[in-house]
Amino acid sequence: MPQGQPLAVPEDGLTTRQRRNRPLLMVHTGDGKGKSTAAFGLALRSWNQGWSIGVFQFVKSAKWRIGEQTVLERLGELHEQTGEGGPVEWHKMGSGWSWSKKQGDEEDHARAAAEGWKEIKRRLAAETHDLYVLDEFTYPIAWGWVDADDVAETLSNRPGRQHVVVTGRRAAPALLDVADLVTDMTKVKHPMDTGQKGQRGIEW
Amino acid sequence: MPQGQPLAVPEDGLTTRQRRNRPLLMVHTGDGKGKSTAAFGLALRSWNQGWSIGVFQFVKSAKWRIGEQTVLERLGELHEQTGEGGPVEWHKMGSGWSWSKKQGDEEDHARAAAEGWKEIKRRLAAETHDLYVLDEFTYPIAWGWVDADDVAETLSNRPGRQHVVVTGRRAAPALLDVADLVTDMTKVKHPMDTGQKGQRGIEW
Repeated sequence: MPQGQPLAVPEDGLTTRQRRNRPLLMVHTGDGKGKSTAAFGLALRSWNQGWSIGVFQFVKSAKWRIGEQTVLERLGELHEQTGEGGPVEWHKMGSGWSWSKKQGDEEDHARAAAEGWKEIKRRLAAETHDLYVLDEFTYPIAWGWVDADDVAETLSNRPGRQHVVVTGRRAAPALLDVADLVTDMTKVKHPMDTGQKGQRGIEW
Repeated sequence: MPQGQPLAVPEDGLTTRQRRNRPLLMVHTGDGKGKSTAAFGLALRSWNQGWSIGVFQFVKSAKWRIGEQTVLERLGELHEQTGEGGPVEWHKMGSGWSWSKKQGDEEDHARAAAEGWKEIKRRLAAETHDLYVLDEFTYPIAWGWVDADDVAETLSNRPGRQHVVVTGRRAAPALLDVADLVTDMTKVKHPMDTGQKGQRGIEW
């Protein structure tokens, strides 16, 4: 879509190229379908640029393996085998974060979410990835498991050239304030409203 | 997101399984970012199910190669080589449709769009693909190059189990009427509003 011209050229002392290359903080929110799907679609583009991708799945989808995980991890393998694209790491909260030795303490979701965020902060400080997908990260924030102001401050002050996309409903105002791009996926019609459940290949 | 329960169970004589497996007509519309990205994210899921994917790019992105094309075509190759996932075909209007012998008549966009739609109709009748991505197909409809009622009727009467996703702004009311799922990607904030142009890995 946006290959057009910007609406205004700001007086920020940056060249067009510098401005163009500023890393983005993106938020996909709203009640409609497409928030996570678009974030994983973005990961496709990033992979193609050879970027390092870190996916961090909070809440729901963490329990089962979604199609995107299989495909993106396969693309990560392809990168290791042939050098095509970029590396992919996929971490999920569901059964204990992959980097953590504590497995199976999935009961304590609040602690697991806070641990996930701590690891993401470490990685942002170390400039580990080029794209971070923080999937459904709005929920632990909304539930008070992770502090919204800490998230907003950390993300807006992250060093280097790291893109971040956060998905989920009810995004915190503090997060929206510091985001560069916010899309509200608004539900106009959903098959579930007429009694159709989610299906393979469409929902996961 | 929607792993929950439907809001109502309709009296349509279908079992839950039959209803669950009904093929979907999806529309991603609105002024925000994420319409095409989410459609290609959906294609990732479909590939993982072993489905045959047909992408038809109308308008804009047809002129250049976007990251998703490289990656999805690479996944299609992987399918041919190893049997993983499903086959992928990617057709774009920009420099003449891939199936057409007439190349380079890109000046006549109206005719090219009408030809694209005719081919899609043939494929729907032949049940060629499991997922059709009709990217930015709303524009040729909005511009009168393709008839909205023909599209609505053809898509709602398509045989078998073929999923279709249409992307683009200003979706025709006739199309929205027959769609099962409509998401309006609403722009809340976009970097272009503050003078930032599109960038590699994010916009393409």
